[in-house]
Amino acid sequence: MPDLPRVVIVGGGFGGLQVVKQLRRAPVEVTLIDRRNIHLFQPLLYQVATGGLSPGDISSPLRWVLRRHRNTRVWLAEVSDIDGRARRVVLKDGQLAYDTLVLATGAEHHYFGRDDWAQRAPGLKTIEDATDIRRRILLAFEAAEREPDPKAREEFLTFVVVGAGPTGVELAGAMGELARDTLRHDFRAIDTTATRILLLEGRDRVLSPFPTRLSHKCRRSLEQLGVTVRTGALVAEVGERWVLVKRGEETERIPTRTVLWAAGVRASHLGRVIAETTGAQLDDTGRVLVEPDLSLPGHSEIFVIGDLAHFAHQTGGPLPGLAAVAMQQGRYVGKAIRKRLRGQEVEPFRYRNMGQLATIGRAAAVADLPGIRISGFLAWILWLFVHLMYLVGFENRVLVFIQWAWNYFTWDRGTRIITGKHELGPGD
Amino acid sequence: MPDLPRVVIVGGGFGGLQVVKQLRRAPVEVTLIDRRNIHLFQPLLYQVATGGLSPGDISSPLRWVLRRHRNTRVWLAEVSDIDGRARRVVLKDGQLAYDTLVLATGAEHHYFGRDDWAQRAPGLKTIEDATDIRRRILLAFEAAEREPDPKAREEFLTFVVVGAGPTGVELAGAMGELARDTLRHDFRAIDTTATRILLLEGRDRVLSPFPTRLSHKCRRSLEQLGVTVRTGALVAEVGERWVLVKRGEETERIPTRTVLWAAGVRASHLGRVIAETTGAQLDDTGRVLVEPDLSLPGHSEIFVIGDLAHFAHQTGGPLPGLAAVAMQQGRYVGKAIRKRLRGQEVEPFRYRNMGQLATIGRAAAVADLPGIRISGFLAWILWLFVHLMYLVGFENRVLVFIQWAWNYFTWDRGTRIITGKHELGPGD
Repeated sequence: MPDLPRVVIVGGGFGGLQVVKQLRRAPVEVTLIDRRNIHLFQPLLYQVATGGLSPGDISSPLRWVLRRHRNTRVWLAEVSDIDGRARRVVLKDGQLAYDTLVLATGAEHHYFGRDDWAQRAPGLKTIEDATDIRRRILLAFEAAEREPDPKAREEFLTFVVVGAGPTGVELAGAMGELARDTLRHDFRAIDTTATRILLLEGRDRVLSPFPTRLSHKCRRSLEQLGVTVRTGALVAEVGERWVLVKRGEETERIPTRTVLWAAGVRASHLGRVIAETTGAQLDDTGRVLVEPDLSLPGHSEIFVIGDLAHFAHQTGGPLPGLAAVAMQQGRYVGKAIRKRLRGQEVEPFRYRNMGQLATIGRAAAVADLPGIRISGFLAWILWLFVHLMYLVGFENRVLVFIQWAWNYFTWDRGTRIITGKHELGPGD
Repeated sequence: MPDLPRVVIVGGGFGGLQVVKQLRRAPVEVTLIDRRNIHLFQPLLYQVATGGLSPGDISSPLRWVLRRHRNTRVWLAEVSDIDGRARRVVLKDGQLAYDTLVLATGAEHHYFGRDDWAQRAPGLKTIEDATDIRRRILLAFEAAEREPDPKAREEFLTFVVVGAGPTGVELAGAMGELARDTLRHDFRAIDTTATRILLLEGRDRVLSPFPTRLSHKCRRSLEQLGVTVRTGALVAEVGERWVLVKRGEETERIPTRTVLWAAGVRASHLGRVIAETTGAQLDDTGRVLVEPDLSLPGHSEIFVIGDLAHFAHQTGGPLPGLAAVAMQQGRYVGKAIRKRLRGQEVEPFRYRNMGQLATIGRAAAVADLPGIRISGFLAWILWLFVHLMYLVGFENRVLVFIQWAWNYFTWDRGTRIITGKHELGPGD
């Protein structure tokens, strides 16, 4: 395929994959670059972190997803730079020329200038993050079981989740279930139902992107699961065996061995790279400001989509960091590339709001949909349905469904495996 | 439970778990010590290594398995020493007194004095081993896809499995399927069906514990999967990009990037520890010579079972390193402890040979059973049935069954995930 236009897509997440799919029958040569060999269904990562699912259940090999795309090759590689003038992607070990480039590398954790907290308060973005968090949670219970000193035991049985957005809420809710139900009969020296799970939120309510009423419902559901919610609470310091929390004038030192970070994300570092190369503007969380057609100012051959993009032409502010946004943008860019090849005009991108969902453990969820706001069991069924539907691969859907059913009827979470290093310690 | 006899069991594998189960209603205080929080179904580890199953599918949390054993506590700990005189198990971080001790820590890889090969030629005993091997196999294909030099590409597409016992045979067979079927449509620059898989065996036939006829059948099945079998072949050296093989007078240097070790095991290091403490004898692979009742000479309160034990009172030589042996010995020891408590006499242990099974990929297996020897599809069905039956936990059985069915009908292996470090390199 030497004479076809070369489309290079960086990132095989929700956005990138949609671009590739739109180009399946287009007269282009597609290269999808990713650091990982899989498409990861990030919305369910918290279930891996809490022992409910295996990493394999929410991963699909990119090559398998694209096996019938004869015009597409997948490269396992890491992008280190982009040469916008020569139209070349510089890899850690090589380079690659493009005619059209799509950047879809998403977001990473944001510690607001305190990157040193990353070791002590890990975030949840990759499979390794999830198995690391799972290890920390399970090891804390194991250590508590063997700890004779009641004070030290309490440290092990106190878990702090920082940030009450959807990820923090889902994580705290799943941990509540784990402690109160799943592990209930597993230990002899400790009572896991007395586990303290603290959910800290800097704003005045949980799930702040949702309507206030749903935030209240969510908070009540969390409290029923034994989660203590503290709003208006900012983390001032993360120590080895404690976390320092500020609420207004008050300062509290909470002894804990396990702090999990769900307080914020910033755009992937590729945003900084492309800004330096092309002079594009970044917002305060590193997202690239894009044109109405999602391309870069002055570089119509470069598109930026998903969590890496700041698209302000519709609502004034950036669009939310949702899979739905990335997928719509991916489909749009794929079609735009095809239209340009045919010399057709490309309309500006329009985001169609499909609403948002968050789950709070067993049979409880909130759904903020266009025209309807629901919570409780019905919202949870909707949440189940949507997540199973968007999961890639029929096999994964069956496996996840069975494990959810198993979890629902038996309260069990089957993948409570501790992998990797077994030493428990601060900042390990 | 302060006045009950204390039974400490080290190792929650096939043997140790059976001891605990036999003691469920006995008037004893049981402590099960394991370095891991799970019971691992090792016979299926090769399917994790080749992307067919998730680690969670073949793991059961020990606490979950024993949740209804009110007289049993599980300790996540590592044993560093045993004080036979004071009847104390010394842990890395503490100690534990016993009245009866059962050692069931199994086996580890054996490099016959060349432990430096472990880095370049990993073996398959733990979940981390399996995900490491999976990573190496998948990364080799990824690197081959991007490698322009044909010679270097061939190095990546050559896989060497050392040792043609059941593990080596199952691994090589599964890799043959992976390369010829599963990955067939996944790559663009390479033809995975041309992958070279070499199975090296020092003896004169594969599966040497099986009858000769079944060895021949197995070899033919392997060859049909594209595996090249070399018998009478000894590994003389493992280099960074090659392996040196001796066959009689000949020496051959095989360029390869991936060498997997299935050539031998030795008993866990706890055998050496207990030999030093009690004066027990070890055989040449570190197994502890035990009395007819599986106890140690001069220490009737210490039992050794499974791969750690050398029981020569029935056949003259040691029993094979099979799950069936460990389970029978575990049940025997559990019952023996109960009988002793009641002052009853304990008969010597007798192994009841249930035969042995090995599978060679898709719909092919060999079964050497008392009175009948079969191969092919029927043996494979038997293999499936036995493995599903002995897998712990109903959920795991359902999940494994579904994935096998999926694999069988679609040729897909869904868990082809590369986790951990992504750099490919010799000895990484």
